[in-house]
Amino acid sequence: MSNENKRISTAVIRRLPRYYGFLTRLMEKDIWRISSRELAERMGVTASQVRQDLNQFGSFGQQGYGYNVAFLQKEMQYILGLDNKHTMVLLGTSGLGAALLETPGLIAKGFSFVAAFDPDPDLVGKTVSGFVVQDLLGIEEYLSKNNVDVAVITLPNKEAIEISKVLAGTRIGGIWNFACVDLQMPNRIPVENIRLQDSLATLSYKINEETTLNGTGIWNVW
Amino acid sequence: MSNENKRISTAVIRRLPRYYGFLTRLMEKDIWRISSRELAERMGVTASQVRQDLNQFGSFGQQGYGYNVAFLQKEMQYILGLDNKHTMVLLGTSGLGAALLETPGLIAKGFSFVAAFDPDPDLVGKTVSGFVVQDLLGIEEYLSKNNVDVAVITLPNKEAIEISKVLAGTRIGGIWNFACVDLQMPNRIPVENIRLQDSLATLSYKINEETTLNGTGIWNVW
Repeated sequence: MSNENKRISTAVIRRLPRYYGFLTRLMEKDIWRISSRELAERMGVTASQVRQDLNQFGSFGQQGYGYNVAFLQKEMQYILGLDNKHTMVLLGTSGLGAALLETPGLIAKGFSFVAAFDPDPDLVGKTVSGFVVQDLLGIEEYLSKNNVDVAVITLPNKEAIEISKVLAGTRIGGIWNFACVDLQMPNRIPVENIRLQDSLATLSYKINEETTLNGTGIWNVW
Repeated sequence: MSNENKRISTAVIRRLPRYYGFLTRLMEKDIWRISSRELAERMGVTASQVRQDLNQFGSFGQQGYGYNVAFLQKEMQYILGLDNKHTMVLLGTSGLGAALLETPGLIAKGFSFVAAFDPDPDLVGKTVSGFVVQDLLGIEEYLSKNNVDVAVITLPNKEAIEISKVLAGTRIGGIWNFACVDLQMPNRIPVENIRLQDSLATLSYKINEETTLNGTGIWNVW
């Protein structure tokens, strides 16, 4: 493949972490070579989709020999920026926030929290998973003095929107947002959303549909 | 709109919870009427997309008058099956699982945990957020005696795969899966995945891209 500049589509970007995770698990199982057909089956896409996806980043496979799992995994890691260390601050230290803070295994390798903030005066100064909770009011100053890659937002919706306006003026690299709202950020600050409520509502729809359909595959509107 | 049976596309289903959440927040702000144009702007889709999506479920809007927010929200709630109460069991009570158990606010209205299970003998019998942790080995028997709508899986990948095989033989309504693996379930048991690691890897890609691009909009392959 020639040296080229290109913009990768969002759909492909969304599949990259799944390729990466899948390849990592293959290596753990001591599997070192895989065909695009097998990769496709496991991923639930077509083999030509796999080849097309991977070709966007270079020619990884050899016709008839499949992909070198370790090589492809390493390249995916590089493309995803997972070779780099990422620092994170947690904004919102109760419930889910605390769980994220205390279970680094949840989070991808190379990502680590460096500080935790909360707007609740009762929590400020307390220690959560080894972090002394700082006052959320101090986040702007903290970010002006420390290079932080990711702000993890586990605040209620209203507080999440307020703090996103503050973050928009800082040098934060990106936002991992667990609040159930769309945050308006400048283009240079990417946002990834984990929408727990939306996901559960989707599951509710599917369960409801399954009951309504009774296996007919048809949704009865009314 | 005439009485019709139809299959709703996954893309539309994915947008329904966002409409629902957005409409709910409008009501909280005392906004009772909205045009498809406004709805579209807030949702980041086109107005014709909004009309097309909502028309699949009936004619909610009046030309020139926009949508009745309360009516549309109530209909969305019905369509999503959120009118129904849903019972849930938690499989995996450490870290994230415990956080889900103790913060019902995270979860949509109408969803409530009825029991918690863990494979770790050290945790079985302990109380987490008011639930006595039961041995995961007893899940099959529990589900044969109790109607449960959702199994929430917050177990490590290997344990998640193992328990999914057990769940496949039960009357569970659906799976909310937080493990970073694809679970193979019969079609009658829908699965919704929360992929924390994949989401963080996507964010890493975007941050990396932002750095590499330096705002040129072009990803330099090599």
